[in-house]
Amino acid sequence: MAHISLQDGVPGIRSLVLYRPDTGKPLYELAQVLLRADSPLSPGERELIAAYVSAQNECVFCSCSHAAAARYLYQDEEQIVDLVLADYQSAPISDKIKALLSIAGKVQADARTVSEADVALARSCGASDRDIHDTVLIAAAFCMFNRYVDGLGTSTPSDPDAYRLMGERMGSLGYVPPVQL
Amino acid sequence: MAHISLQDGVPGIRSLVLYRPDTGKPLYELAQVLLRADSPLSPGERELIAAYVSAQNECVFCSCSHAAAARYLYQDEEQIVDLVLADYQSAPISDKIKALLSIAGKVQADARTVSEADVALARSCGASDRDIHDTVLIAAAFCMFNRYVDGLGTSTPSDPDAYRLMGERMGSLGYVPPVQL
Repeated sequence: MAHISLQDGVPGIRSLVLYRPDTGKPLYELAQVLLRADSPLSPGERELIAAYVSAQNECVFCSCSHAAAARYLYQDEEQIVDLVLADYQSAPISDKIKALLSIAGKVQADARTVSEADVALARSCGASDRDIHDTVLIAAAFCMFNRYVDGLGTSTPSDPDAYRLMGERMGSLGYVPPVQL
Repeated sequence: MAHISLQDGVPGIRSLVLYRPDTGKPLYELAQVLLRADSPLSPGERELIAAYVSAQNECVFCSCSHAAAARYLYQDEEQIVDLVLADYQSAPISDKIKALLSIAGKVQADARTVSEADVALARSCGASDRDIHDTVLIAAAFCMFNRYVDGLGTSTPSDPDAYRLMGERMGSLGYVPPVQL
């Protein structure tokens, strides 16, 4: 049960945005611009970073929903998303994305440990300043979203179909605050 | 030195907002609504929570600047802010703020550990749903801001006067993206 009084039947962050729409607005705008607007990283790659960081934080709601969005965007016939979440170093993704996931993992654990060597490795695999910036901000932002959702004990669906539907919505419509729907 | 090319002489998050204004806009809007708009917590109390979480994350830029903003807003003649950062349990603050700082600390470390007992203690000291919500979101948001600033190795001033001036600006003007100044 949630730690504060939230609308019944609304899961995760959506219940919090309905509770306080004025903070929900910049949170959804951040998600939309960071995960969908112009970036050298594809929307699928950005959702993959979001899902990976959320899994490291063991946030069930965010890891399941953003993994579902990544699967939708990757049209995940080869199960790339699940292979990345199991062990990204052996997954069929580019060395650039592996180096960026390594940076994202360091941001999640302790951002001060991102080193010149980590950044040099990513650059040697073709990463630009914007790739590195966007990776760090996505990882940082999900350290917020994960804590917001779990720190208030919001509702976490257990039905995989619920996440599949969320992933389709997030992948097709993007991030629209629930108050506008 | 920063991990990406940022404007010289601009510290911390301000250099990142100049680098990517479209993500900076919702980040500053979030800070403004969360730390300055209507809340049962005063702006000083909210800056204190921000400074405490940033200190737990050992983010020098954010802990020094938000501590300075809290000192400005508290008109800190009794050094409340420094006593809280040294040991909040023995500081001259209300039991409600102590219980909320305890929740903020759990959100920072592992948000899943915020318990019914933590929330019940805060309520017994007078905390409302909104106190608890705003505390959790402030703590979560600074887990993002701290990681964004440190994960990209932004410039961190060492001069205490630089933070005092930042605190005065944050306390009087609030959060205005640097591109608008």
